[in-house]
Amino acid sequence: MGDSTAADGGDNRLPERNAGEEVCRLVEQSKELQESASALISRNSQEDASLRQRALALDSNIKMLRSFIDSSVKKGNLDSKRAEKLSEELSRASYALSEGDAATFLPCKSHGRFLRMFLGPINVRANRKDIQLKVKEEYYSFRDRTAYLFLFFPSLLLVLRSQLWGGCFPALPVQIYQAWLLFLYTALALRENILRVNGSDIRPWWIYHHYCAMGMALISLTWEIEKQPDCALKQKGIQLFLRWAIMQGVAMLLQNRYQRQRLYTRIALGKARRMDVVWGETAGVKGQLWLLLPILFVLQAFEAYVGVLLLQTAVVGVVSEWQVVACGLLLIVMAVGNFANTVQTLVLKSRFKAKMKRGKSKSDLSRVSKDQ
Amino acid sequence: MGDSTAADGGDNRLPERNAGEEVCRLVEQSKELQESASALISRNSQEDASLRQRALALDSNIKMLRSFIDSSVKKGNLDSKRAEKLSEELSRASYALSEGDAATFLPCKSHGRFLRMFLGPINVRANRKDIQLKVKEEYYSFRDRTAYLFLFFPSLLLVLRSQLWGGCFPALPVQIYQAWLLFLYTALALRENILRVNGSDIRPWWIYHHYCAMGMALISLTWEIEKQPDCALKQKGIQLFLRWAIMQGVAMLLQNRYQRQRLYTRIALGKARRMDVVWGETAGVKGQLWLLLPILFVLQAFEAYVGVLLLQTAVVGVVSEWQVVACGLLLIVMAVGNFANTVQTLVLKSRFKAKMKRGKSKSDLSRVSKDQ
Repeated sequence: MGDSTAADGGDNRLPERNAGEEVCRLVEQSKELQESASALISRNSQEDASLRQRALALDSNIKMLRSFIDSSVKKGNLDSKRAEKLSEELSRASYALSEGDAATFLPCKSHGRFLRMFLGPINVRANRKDIQLKVKEEYYSFRDRTAYLFLFFPSLLLVLRSQLWGGCFPALPVQIYQAWLLFLYTALALRENILRVNGSDIRPWWIYHHYCAMGMALISLTWEIEKQPDCALKQKGIQLFLRWAIMQGVAMLLQNRYQRQRLYTRIALGKARRMDVVWGETAGVKGQLWLLLPILFVLQAFEAYVGVLLLQTAVVGVVSEWQVVACGLLLIVMAVGNFANTVQTLVLKSRFKAKMKRGKSKSDLSRVSKDQ
Repeated sequence: MGDSTAADGGDNRLPERNAGEEVCRLVEQSKELQESASALISRNSQEDASLRQRALALDSNIKMLRSFIDSSVKKGNLDSKRAEKLSEELSRASYALSEGDAATFLPCKSHGRFLRMFLGPINVRANRKDIQLKVKEEYYSFRDRTAYLFLFFPSLLLVLRSQLWGGCFPALPVQIYQAWLLFLYTALALRENILRVNGSDIRPWWIYHHYCAMGMALISLTWEIEKQPDCALKQKGIQLFLRWAIMQGVAMLLQNRYQRQRLYTRIALGKARRMDVVWGETAGVKGQLWLLLPILFVLQAFEAYVGVLLLQTAVVGVVSEWQVVACGLLLIVMAVGNFANTVQTLVLKSRFKAKMKRGKSKSDLSRVSKDQ
């Protein structure tokens, strides 16, 4: 940029002329860039809108045709084997649509109150498929890291309690753990809402479940922990909760590992879409399902048991704080919800298997997999 | 979709043929849409990349030229009046660049740890200027709504305390207020980080300030509130904190009103960019600055006073919990930080005014306004 002439110093007007020219050149470039940007953006938004319209029309046409085929079969106007072939073709078309570049232009789910409350009206939908997949991958690795901490923190607290603290929890470490839980569930709820906007079919219950868990973490923070004497009796609830958390950590590790494997298998088979998230707890690899299922049911029973126990301590009057009652109720709600969702998925699965055995085709697979 | 022929029912093969044709047509349409989408996306990403490169090059060239002009003036190689004109032209070009459609293609600030922790790797940068402005407008209206609640909640608590609760706060209402504060500061910190990514020049201190406030809200949740007898003495800190919160609410309302007015004026004068956020507390309309400034300094002094008072109660031993010490320290840190930032802005302002009086041009305005 004329530094050599400036160092020269023989002619004082030289840098001035150079600088003036350079400024003119940059101002000109800035105008050109401005114009190119405006042109690109306006052309883009037009083409965007037209693709969006086409995608929307196609999407609703596919849905209408599917219900027309179903009703035709019921009326006996259409041969059921032929209908199956047709709806399989339709499924393949709509699967390809939701998996490819066109997915960006399909109508998007609303952001929901939770995201708007925390983030305002910002759009969190990625406009490229590879970025959406990166977001999902990162969500999985976040869950992985979380599972280890979920195992580590409560174990440490329980070990320190018996080895160092003489049977009584001090308040601070437990409260740090509770604050971490609050952050964790908030982050999970935010990330799952973002995944939903990006086209993942995560079951709504798993998000509600994290809202409940956020509430419980918040309430447990206001809970008075240190109450000498009789701390062992009064801290019974915390102790049970920590043991349940350890079991939860083990289950999370198993789930993460096998669900991920299974999702990859299903994507490879074309049975799942790449943005699907398998939180549904029965979605393990078949062989490991018989290991995972008992653990899950025991976990849910234990969760409800801890809840009932907390309610009991409140009724008996050992601890009379409202927090105990609220946490107990929330734990029971979560246990029942988890159980209902697990059973629902199992029922859907077995119904689907029965259908397969009756010789039906795989055409409904895409719809069943959406409910998992 | 052939419903009339299906109702006809005379020829059973008719709906079948119709459905078959319709399926073929939709599959064909789906393929076409897929191809258009892929074509648009790949063309876009190419043009995007090239515009990004041009914007980056132009941005760094402008910076280099500016420093070249500055150094030329110092060396005496360039007439200072001429240099001012040149750098004014440059400022205008870079202002236009950051305000127009080209802004989308300028290099973007990193998302930062806080956003990544809560949201994962999702991109929160809006790719259209009008959406960025909508996000900022919503941030302002969120602050407005917040200011009224900031005034209302602590007033209600203080009134109920003297009228209904006989001089002693019950735990639950205070804890609900503290939980609301935690949500509020988390949402503000998230929204301000999002604004920063979208090109706003918000001062980093205001974001750090909200991290501190989040910490304080979290710590105050674990604070034991009900301690009969002597609750009046032990709840002195809470009472002071609530009074400070009321003053804060009044100041927020004044600030929001006048800063918004002033921002609009400055945007109209071309002195501020539309994404700028005036959190800097001295940025009121000139006439009202003499109303706002004393309130702000009193507020900061009162904040520090509450902090010191909390530390004192811990030292004297009325309340010996660590939470009291931590909240006290955080309040003092925030008061000092706020004070330092207010003074810094005032100094920058007066320096700028002195420069203006010495007959300098307005060429540096864009740089000064960035520090506000």
